[in-house]
Amino acid sequence: MITAKLVGSIWATRKAEVLNGYKLMLVEVVGGKESGKRMVAADVVGAGVGDRVLVTTGGSARKMLGDDNIPVDAAIVGIIDEDCCFEE
Amino acid sequence: MITAKLVGSIWATRKAEVLNGYKLMLVEVVGGKESGKRMVAADVVGAGVGDRVLVTTGGSARKMLGDDNIPVDAAIVGIIDEDCCFEE
Amino acid sequence: MITAKLVGSIWATRKAEVLNGYKLMLVEVVGGKESGKRMVAADVVGAGVGDRVLVTTGGSARKMLGDDNIPVDAAIVGIIDEDCCFEE
Amino acid sequence: MITAKLVGSIWATRKAEVLNGYKLMLVEVVGGKESGKRMVAADVVGAGVGDRVLVTTGGSARKMLGDDNIPVDAAIVGIIDEDCCFEE
Amino acid sequence: MITAKLVGSIWATRKAEVLNGYKLMLVEVVGGKESGKRMVAADVVGAGVGDRVLVTTGGSARKMLGDDNIPVDAAIVGIIDEDCCFEE
Repeated sequence: MITAKLVGSIWATRKAEVLNGYKLMLVEVVGGKESGKRMVAADVVGAGVGDRVLVTTGGSARKMLGDDNIPVDAAIVGIIDEDCCFEE
Repeated sequence: MITAKLVGSIWATRKAEVLNGYKLMLVEVVGGKESGKRMVAADVVGAGVGDRVLVTTGGSARKMLGDDNIPVDAAIVGIIDEDCCFEE
Repeated sequence: MITAKLVGSIWATRKAEVLNGYKLMLVEVVGGKESGKRMVAADVVGAGVGDRVLVTTGGSARKMLGDDNIPVDAAIVGIIDEDCCFEE
Repeated sequence: MITAKLVGSIWATRKAEVLNGYKLMLVEVVGGKESGKRMVAADVVGAGVGDRVLVTTGGSARKMLGDDNIPVDAAIVGIIDEDCCFEE
Repeated sequence: MITAKLVGSIWATRKAEVLNGYKLMLVEVVGGKESGKRMVAADVVGAGVGDRVLVTTGGSARKMLGDDNIPVDAAIVGIIDEDCCFEE
């Protein structure tokens, strides 16, 4: 997984039908050499803008959604505790 | 998924037969540290040149095409709304 | 797999239920061009902060956890011997 | 998929038996930020040195070979038409 | 697959039991933009230090080991012939 900051929502009215109902969030990697890399992840834990989150990628993201047929390759799997310190 | 801009079509007369009928589009990542990375994605949502799109990768792309045997590793799954702002 | 150094724990009180019970560790790649890249990996071998570890990624990480439905994309699979030298 | 140029053949007399019979080609990414990245891909479309090709990666490459047990993670799936222009 | 040079062995006395018996080798990418990237790969073709090798990654590496439950994400699948020239 990667540590990332939730920076916004992504709205796409025209999209694959199977994606309906999923919240798609724009996240940005924090910490380490890939800091600043962005991706769009489905959120099922109720994270908000500004939260530091854990994002899982690839087939593991589909496991999070409970449906292996959803064409999603990144999912927010947790919200990092505010008092959990790491060098950003 | 990644946020990307659709920059053109890719034509390949000689290709794997199973790819016949799929529109292959050249997209370029927008926003974040990987901005400018390019890939070719299959399009099934009817995106056009200049559209900002959501692209899913890996096995998740095959889910989008509804056939797990298509040798495609990237697919356009949505068109980002024009009034959806994010720093490019 | 990659060679990495374990740099800390990640705490996420709010997370996917299926992740309960897994130790999530922040690791940083050591050696080679990607040195400094960070990721969060599940640990089942009992590694500690400062240990140099082997990390496997993607679907292979889920194999390590013995449950293909855990949304984890990186796992610590070994602790590199202290007298195993390689240029960091 | 990625757009790449076929730059040569790779010969490996000692290799996994299941790879016998596959043409292994060295390709180099053209266009975009990852231009210059190299990989070795199995070719089943009959591409030649100098051709611009479409390369699919990961599990999708195995789909191309029609045998999910071949340990190949990249495959050439098409030859880009000569009059298909994109900024390299 | 990638072209890499075998630079050493990795010893990990404490590791996942399923990894027992596999030779874990440190390899470094040669050629192209990712030259210098390192990874640890399981070797089943008998490569030695200094050999130029072909490395397959992801789920394809597990196919090489003949057991889809081994938590390995990279495997050496061939030794590149000494007279096979490519720009490193």
